[in-house]
Amino acid sequence: MRAVDIILKKRNGKELTKEEIDFLIEGYTAGNIPDYQVSSFLMSVYFKGMTEEETAHLTNAMVQSGDQIDLSKIEGIKVDKHSTGGVGDKTSLIIGPLVASVGIPVAKMSGRGLGHTGGTVDKLEAIEGFQVELTTQQFIDNVNEHKIAIVGQSGNLTPADKKLYALRDVTGTVDSIPLIASSIMSKKIASGSNAIVLDVKFGSGAFMKTLDDARKLANAMVGIGNKLGRQTIAIITDMGQPLGHEIGNANEVKEAIDVLSGKGDHDLTEVCLTLAGNMAVLGGAYDTFEEAYAGLTDVLKSGKAVEKMRDFVVSQGGNGNQITSPETLPQAAYHIEIKAEAEGNVEAIDAESVGIAAMLLGAGRKTKEDAIDYAVGITLLKKVGDTVAKGDTLAIFHANAEDIAVAEKTLKDAYTFTDKEVPAPELIHDIIK
Amino acid sequence: MRAVDIILKKRNGKELTKEEIDFLIEGYTAGNIPDYQVSSFLMSVYFKGMTEEETAHLTNAMVQSGDQIDLSKIEGIKVDKHSTGGVGDKTSLIIGPLVASVGIPVAKMSGRGLGHTGGTVDKLEAIEGFQVELTTQQFIDNVNEHKIAIVGQSGNLTPADKKLYALRDVTGTVDSIPLIASSIMSKKIASGSNAIVLDVKFGSGAFMKTLDDARKLANAMVGIGNKLGRQTIAIITDMGQPLGHEIGNANEVKEAIDVLSGKGDHDLTEVCLTLAGNMAVLGGAYDTFEEAYAGLTDVLKSGKAVEKMRDFVVSQGGNGNQITSPETLPQAAYHIEIKAEAEGNVEAIDAESVGIAAMLLGAGRKTKEDAIDYAVGITLLKKVGDTVAKGDTLAIFHANAEDIAVAEKTLKDAYTFTDKEVPAPELIHDIIK
Repeated sequence: MRAVDIILKKRNGKELTKEEIDFLIEGYTAGNIPDYQVSSFLMSVYFKGMTEEETAHLTNAMVQSGDQIDLSKIEGIKVDKHSTGGVGDKTSLIIGPLVASVGIPVAKMSGRGLGHTGGTVDKLEAIEGFQVELTTQQFIDNVNEHKIAIVGQSGNLTPADKKLYALRDVTGTVDSIPLIASSIMSKKIASGSNAIVLDVKFGSGAFMKTLDDARKLANAMVGIGNKLGRQTIAIITDMGQPLGHEIGNANEVKEAIDVLSGKGDHDLTEVCLTLAGNMAVLGGAYDTFEEAYAGLTDVLKSGKAVEKMRDFVVSQGGNGNQITSPETLPQAAYHIEIKAEAEGNVEAIDAESVGIAAMLLGAGRKTKEDAIDYAVGITLLKKVGDTVAKGDTLAIFHANAEDIAVAEKTLKDAYTFTDKEVPAPELIHDIIK
Repeated sequence: MRAVDIILKKRNGKELTKEEIDFLIEGYTAGNIPDYQVSSFLMSVYFKGMTEEETAHLTNAMVQSGDQIDLSKIEGIKVDKHSTGGVGDKTSLIIGPLVASVGIPVAKMSGRGLGHTGGTVDKLEAIEGFQVELTTQQFIDNVNEHKIAIVGQSGNLTPADKKLYALRDVTGTVDSIPLIASSIMSKKIASGSNAIVLDVKFGSGAFMKTLDDARKLANAMVGIGNKLGRQTIAIITDMGQPLGHEIGNANEVKEAIDVLSGKGDHDLTEVCLTLAGNMAVLGGAYDTFEEAYAGLTDVLKSGKAVEKMRDFVVSQGGNGNQITSPETLPQAAYHIEIKAEAEGNVEAIDAESVGIAAMLLGAGRKTKEDAIDYAVGITLLKKVGDTVAKGDTLAIFHANAEDIAVAEKTLKDAYTFTDKEVPAPELIHDIIK
């Protein structure tokens, strides 16, 4: 078998066999097939796509390229959740404790953030003492005892994906549905869960800009999951504006505590209940989604969910009092109101620009080496559909520096106003099984 | 400027500027842009093509990447000829002396062959004493005095093309019209001639398999020539069977001498007169193609052309008596008649298979290091349109080994027979200016 023949076959629009895809990925991981052959292969995939079969084989080859986490010592059906990422997305902080409180084991490996704000483990580190590194034994013991543990990624998971991702970034082959889908799913499958719920976001703040693209990506990922023996459900959600009101790290933890206490933003709560409801059904806690949604709504109101959050934080060395008293979480020195200069109804809020404003305040990383300031962030007071008068407060900047001019301009530019009435945006666009 | 942005621009079907193409080719030649970015760029070009402007910019960038031959000290309009290659193609051996004998300066650099038989300089080396290496001064002096010199490629011509060609070979990006056209034309332009006549072949023994593809390639090359200030004419010729009757090295020289003596195969003579006629018009020896064709036909009959061949051979140290007495050229030990096992009219002769049979006898090189046996080769006695009875001699193998079984089977398999009458194939399909 020769790499060039596999490139030509894909270039000419033919379907590759499992053996051919394995040969390519094994050879690439081992360093026997050079970058320059793989990059022309990736460009061929960009133009010619991959069938569901091929995408599953590619995913499997990436899973096989490294370690796989063995969760068999954890009792119950392990259901993982993945979001394709967006601004203000704190759903993992909410859904984890929520489904754990109805007995679903949450054994989650999560990444650090490189972008507007931190990732889930960065946000958890805003809590005093919280440890994101556990031994494998501690991780398993914690899940069996508390039904939840969230740790940073460790081990040599999907090295082929890491190599491919770095190559795609510099060869113009990032935005290909089969390549995105196999990259996400390979990491989820190597992480060892039995079932997967995907939050596929679309809109200005998401990687997928249109509903159509989000649906294609969702279908590709559900196809992979089903072919590789992992029950998979994808929820397509709106990221046409930031999710919830808080963008940052400590302030996102606070908003998560609000939702877990049954006092959260309605939209954010609905997205979380939809994701968690599907997870709870896959995990066997409820028979139907409607039962799960109702049951989990009660759990939020009962206080059990926020109690589970405290239990989880303490089990990983964190200060549980900060969950009970969120005002003790890191606080910024300045709280600066950003006033509206225009008036009208908010038609859109470019989520990516809000994310950039948060990063300018120090909430995110530009490079792996940058430190995150957990205390800084943005509270959005006006969202899509709201009516704004000149001088109204659009948002509050939580800052540790007084010079916020660039961030302020970026935030203001993110808003679009209109004279017409704007209906509240639909949040859940589709559920694909 | 970043290479990845240029890749994305081409991938998304936009037209690149001269600056962007120069950046990419200069960076690649200097080693600042890695193979893996260039290979994904090449695959984007495969799928999205290039405009005439872009193809000319690419060609020019490759010309600028290395040395350019200065032929200004040679008097007259220097007209170069290039063939896209085929089996039994000895046209350069014929056309060079033919146009030189009407005063057109032929200052030709030619490659060695890697394939079925040798290239033009390999074939010339079948002549005793012939030197393909001349100093620049000797080369120029010879052309001024004898109107013809043919040497091997020297100097650092189009290093960008060499690097790109090697990369295309292993990344599935060989068969792209703008990449093929720019590769050929960059070498021709760097070689310093004022005008170019291209022999674009199509059919089983050529790189272009269909007339349509040949026409596209011809148009692309003529477009480049015109944009870069070199008058260019492309002749589209048939390679649905080997050209002429001889395939090898010494035996191809013999067939060239036959044509130059006015006693050659009709089809081969017609192709050579068409190419040479266009060169002679571009070089200013005749006003119209019709006049040139008639004039050169007379030159062949007069004996002047074969006289010029001898003069040229002697001027480069070769034994001129071998031109006068071609039977003194290298002779193989065995001459084996290959008999027909089937009967009917010859419908097709797969030229590539005939080429492989010749290589199996030792007429070509598989790797750069292989030696060529000048004496071996194939004489085809039956060609398309001929009627064959069982037991008729299809071809004669000139061999230096008795074991010719594989070559024999390859040759026999190259023939297709039919009961129907087969018209003689059309040779000249189009002339593109």
